[in-house]
Amino acid sequence: MITTSIEHHAILHSCEELERQGIETTVVPVRRDPDSQGMVDPEEIRRALRPETVLISVMHANNELGTIQPIAEIGRIAAQAKVGFHCDAVQSAGKVPLDVNLLGVDLLSISAHKFCGPKGVGALYVRPGTPLERRFYGGHAERDRRPGTENVPGIVGLGKAAELSRKLLVEDAARIRALRDRLETSLLDRISGARVSGDRTNRVPNTISMTFSGAGGEALLISLDLQGIACSTGAACSSGSTEPSHVLLAAGLSADDARSSLRFSLGRGTTAEEIDYAISVIPSVVERLRALSPRTSEASRDSHAALAAPSQ
Amino acid sequence: MITTSIEHHAILHSCEELERQGIETTVVPVRRDPDSQGMVDPEEIRRALRPETVLISVMHANNELGTIQPIAEIGRIAAQAKVGFHCDAVQSAGKVPLDVNLLGVDLLSISAHKFCGPKGVGALYVRPGTPLERRFYGGHAERDRRPGTENVPGIVGLGKAAELSRKLLVEDAARIRALRDRLETSLLDRISGARVSGDRTNRVPNTISMTFSGAGGEALLISLDLQGIACSTGAACSSGSTEPSHVLLAAGLSADDARSSLRFSLGRGTTAEEIDYAISVIPSVVERLRALSPRTSEASRDSHAALAAPSQ
Repeated sequence: MITTSIEHHAILHSCEELERQGIETTVVPVRRDPDSQGMVDPEEIRRALRPETVLISVMHANNELGTIQPIAEIGRIAAQAKVGFHCDAVQSAGKVPLDVNLLGVDLLSISAHKFCGPKGVGALYVRPGTPLERRFYGGHAERDRRPGTENVPGIVGLGKAAELSRKLLVEDAARIRALRDRLETSLLDRISGARVSGDRTNRVPNTISMTFSGAGGEALLISLDLQGIACSTGAACSSGSTEPSHVLLAAGLSADDARSSLRFSLGRGTTAEEIDYAISVIPSVVERLRALSPRTSEASRDSHAALAAPSQ
Repeated sequence: MITTSIEHHAILHSCEELERQGIETTVVPVRRDPDSQGMVDPEEIRRALRPETVLISVMHANNELGTIQPIAEIGRIAAQAKVGFHCDAVQSAGKVPLDVNLLGVDLLSISAHKFCGPKGVGALYVRPGTPLERRFYGGHAERDRRPGTENVPGIVGLGKAAELSRKLLVEDAARIRALRDRLETSLLDRISGARVSGDRTNRVPNTISMTFSGAGGEALLISLDLQGIACSTGAACSSGSTEPSHVLLAAGLSADDARSSLRFSLGRGTTAEEIDYAISVIPSVVERLRALSPRTSEASRDSHAALAAPSQ
């Protein structure tokens, strides 16, 4: 199996389990140059192919950087090599158009809560003819693949959310991109040394990954939370972890910079007023925390600093 | 692993898969005598124990017969032998009290839609210290056992349904048992040769499994459906199957009798008027279909007969 270094843990931890079972996995690195940071080079995938390769898994949009991978190109390589191709499109569904034929994927996964649907339900597209072993036994539900009484409200919710996302996609994307770009430009203007990670062109319209060197990400997170601004230091699934994001490290950031990075995500509900508020608050919070440096690298001091920040 | 011949396919098919993987399973038979039909003899479980046995799985109430198994006795045997004990309590949750300590189980599974909760969500009780391997990888949700964004609405719904079931259990059970017994007695009185399968004493209060020899179950099902009465010929999970129920066969019914059997299930919403209506309709439908015998054993004729039945 072949995958990349910036996949979600859903893929990377599964690969580790496959390794434990004796199935070899090649983890292809991503580019670190500013112009295409976090991008997979399809040629690296091609070079990693072996006669025994059965599956390639590459995510569509990265959940932390927003970087959109060249899935269609990788799809052509997979098809030529007659290797199954799975795409984790959880982060891009509802944000950019997805066409399994244009992408050339055999399997594609999405998750409803990422496009305003209910939590706890997803969908796996399976191209007809793709061999797929069942994971559970005991009935014939979901075409023998996963028996059990289906999550009917969840399935209906996912369907409706997909329908609405498709209808609103173009309009949503334009509006959210404009807000995102304004937030990004304003923060870059007002915060010295702030840098955006990831490929700024090939990117979902709602994501910013930004590094504020000298200000601890955890302290920033807590300070902003107290001011009513929710963001994250990495994947939500890793919350509570003090390890720097594996995605940012793979994209070439130092551990210190990775620890000083925040991810901002916008959505259908984000308003211009909220963006204005964020622009007015974030620079001063970063400045205050930088003034506490170098103590910001100590978690306990971070919390202290955050708790001392004025809440409103 | 040790289980019984009347478990749900969720268990029996999983055992078959374990066998394919080289893990031996002993399927213990159930009693066939009328007084305790479908009951597991705990001594049979004890006799099936081997030094390498790691798990016993016995259901609490059977989904077709309603028979309640002697789980606490089996729990004592499992504890003595230091063997893990799983109980599939899907069919009994919300119908009879469940106490994992009184039952002596290490693992107990329930499913929300069986006690008026939402479809697609269940719960597995795990006694602290029970070794349990994760089935999925990629995050720390659900105590590292099943990563992924949880089905929050489903979980809340299951919790609320459990709370209500606990509150209403005694009252519900008494009311439903009275209705069930009236339906059962009336059908036995009015339909010659009708017989109840399963242990009539140790039984959940809402279930009747009844055999109407000489009337095809599928034809009965369709005829009753046309009259607004929903019942089943076996497990809902096997609907569409023409095989006789493995549970009824294991309980000693002939294939013909198993094919002439129906299961009636009552619930919190069942009214006395509905029971009166069922009592007024079912005997004449059985009589009509028996008059078509022996053609009722042919599926096509069955459908024909059903379609010719007056609908209302």
